[in-house]
Amino acid sequence: MQALRDLAKAVHRGERRALARAITLVESSRPDHRAGALELLEHLRDLKPKEALRIGLSGTPGVGKSTFTEAFGMHLISLGLKVAVLAVDPSSTRSGGSILGDKTRMERLAREKQAFIRPSPSQTNLGGVARRTREAIMLCEAAGYDVVLIETVGVGQSETMVAQMSDIFLLLLAPAGGDELQGVKRGIMEIADIILVNKADGDLKATATRTCADYAGALRLLRKRSRDPEGYPLAQTVSATEGDGIAQAWDAIQTLAQKRRDMGVWDRNRKAQNLHWFEAELREGVLRQLSEDPAVKAAISGLEDAVTGGQITPSAAAAQVLSHLHGDNDA
Amino acid sequence: MQALRDLAKAVHRGERRALARAITLVESSRPDHRAGALELLEHLRDLKPKEALRIGLSGTPGVGKSTFTEAFGMHLISLGLKVAVLAVDPSSTRSGGSILGDKTRMERLAREKQAFIRPSPSQTNLGGVARRTREAIMLCEAAGYDVVLIETVGVGQSETMVAQMSDIFLLLLAPAGGDELQGVKRGIMEIADIILVNKADGDLKATATRTCADYAGALRLLRKRSRDPEGYPLAQTVSATEGDGIAQAWDAIQTLAQKRRDMGVWDRNRKAQNLHWFEAELREGVLRQLSEDPAVKAAISGLEDAVTGGQITPSAAAAQVLSHLHGDNDA
Repeated sequence: MQALRDLAKAVHRGERRALARAITLVESSRPDHRAGALELLEHLRDLKPKEALRIGLSGTPGVGKSTFTEAFGMHLISLGLKVAVLAVDPSSTRSGGSILGDKTRMERLAREKQAFIRPSPSQTNLGGVARRTREAIMLCEAAGYDVVLIETVGVGQSETMVAQMSDIFLLLLAPAGGDELQGVKRGIMEIADIILVNKADGDLKATATRTCADYAGALRLLRKRSRDPEGYPLAQTVSATEGDGIAQAWDAIQTLAQKRRDMGVWDRNRKAQNLHWFEAELREGVLRQLSEDPAVKAAISGLEDAVTGGQITPSAAAAQVLSHLHGDNDA
Repeated sequence: MQALRDLAKAVHRGERRALARAITLVESSRPDHRAGALELLEHLRDLKPKEALRIGLSGTPGVGKSTFTEAFGMHLISLGLKVAVLAVDPSSTRSGGSILGDKTRMERLAREKQAFIRPSPSQTNLGGVARRTREAIMLCEAAGYDVVLIETVGVGQSETMVAQMSDIFLLLLAPAGGDELQGVKRGIMEIADIILVNKADGDLKATATRTCADYAGALRLLRKRSRDPEGYPLAQTVSATEGDGIAQAWDAIQTLAQKRRDMGVWDRNRKAQNLHWFEAELREGVLRQLSEDPAVKAAISGLEDAVTGGQITPSAAAAQVLSHLHGDNDA
């Protein structure tokens, strides 16, 4: 469609309103919008946009993610870079609602022409959030942003998901006593490339420095990987409110990015991510097709009463439906 | 098969070795074992075993889960009850290995004839862990255990998963300053029926009492549900090492269980859980079939190079395979 080709061109020229419209399109779950989104992404791929640096950022609520993002984003802009901020918040299935990415929490950054902030899309399943976010990253990249920061709250699998779409993954932590180190989930420590201990200012400065040393030690113990260049993963202190350590954090990120490029890890990583995304999309799609198939629907609803009534175990009921599906495929 | 019928009977008579063998069978992923496991579960269902009280327990590492489980289990045994402890630990995809459920951490309980402790099965995906655990619960129930305690570490989605297979969900927390309250993930607070603040002894006793009051307040704010009887969810202090509060925790659990039975919530909850399990099994099975289908395998491997090479977006590649699948079904 010509309209989609035009939209692709406008996104590629860096027009903010076009980018916002394009993201809205990939966020839609309407089948016609979905087809349009796929076409739009293909058009943009044809335009061979330059690669952005994709940075994942995680941290528990209250650790100062918005303040850090604002300070970090302003620093990048001062260096002449364009920065896009995407928020991912697949919050509790019960509470709903976005707690992140609110532009009012990054007032200065939101006013900058070189910055683009997109709040978390309305709630959906984790697979849906993943797809929308990955496609939004591609759009920001196509729109010429140098850095795409993907921010997520430290809940459940969202961190792993964001790490899987980032080139470099940052973990923002608060100063804490040595005992609490164990409270940081091991899985998260293992995916962090750079740990930033925030609030290294005022009364908390000494504690932050000590916490940082503790994490540095833990990182050395936890992760020994061939893809890590010398000295990484590392831990540093920052003060998002004072601006201390922000430039150093950016230096550490750039150094790591360059080393990974030199080692060929960068490229391999992106390829592996694309493959992962392809497989995830496929799984999502198959389950969607399944849930919409009338024959499967009928088979399921026929067994639901027996399952809830205890006349058959859930496992046996599932096996029954599956053998029926398998039979269909063989015919 | 006669052998499976005999195994079912031995499990139903409460023979521990038979139970252990049966759990090993449901934990196996070999197709013939899987078929045997389904048959075994059906045999046991036919024997109409009595319902156990399924208690989920979560808490971060270091909070004292093993110590609590041992004290709690010994208390139940002193009341003449039989208790089974299952551990769920779908730990980091990178680190692997079980950190929970080690019998050496519950030495006294492990020696009791009325107790059965099963360590976490070897690592697999979350769906696989869920199925094995649910089926192990059914087996323990069939073997006549009065209480089945399902213990999980506070990582990712494992808590939600365990809550979905429990009648009552306990959250074990450490004493903490008021600032740290926000560190407890909201989603977890929302699924907890009873919060137990551990280490209410010695120097930490006052802090534990204060922390408990903080959580009680948070629970009141967070959760107002019709399925909650008067006074629940609630927060209490315990000392797993001293044994203080263990009897009170058991009283609170029993009271809640009885109220839920009286309100009809218990039965509705179990039915909903069975349905959830049926659907989850179905999803898992469909994805397994997909990954084994030669035509799908061929279609995927044909696109993998294009995806990693950037000649097609992962979304478009997935859409191509999916349209092909859909075409097959229509034929």
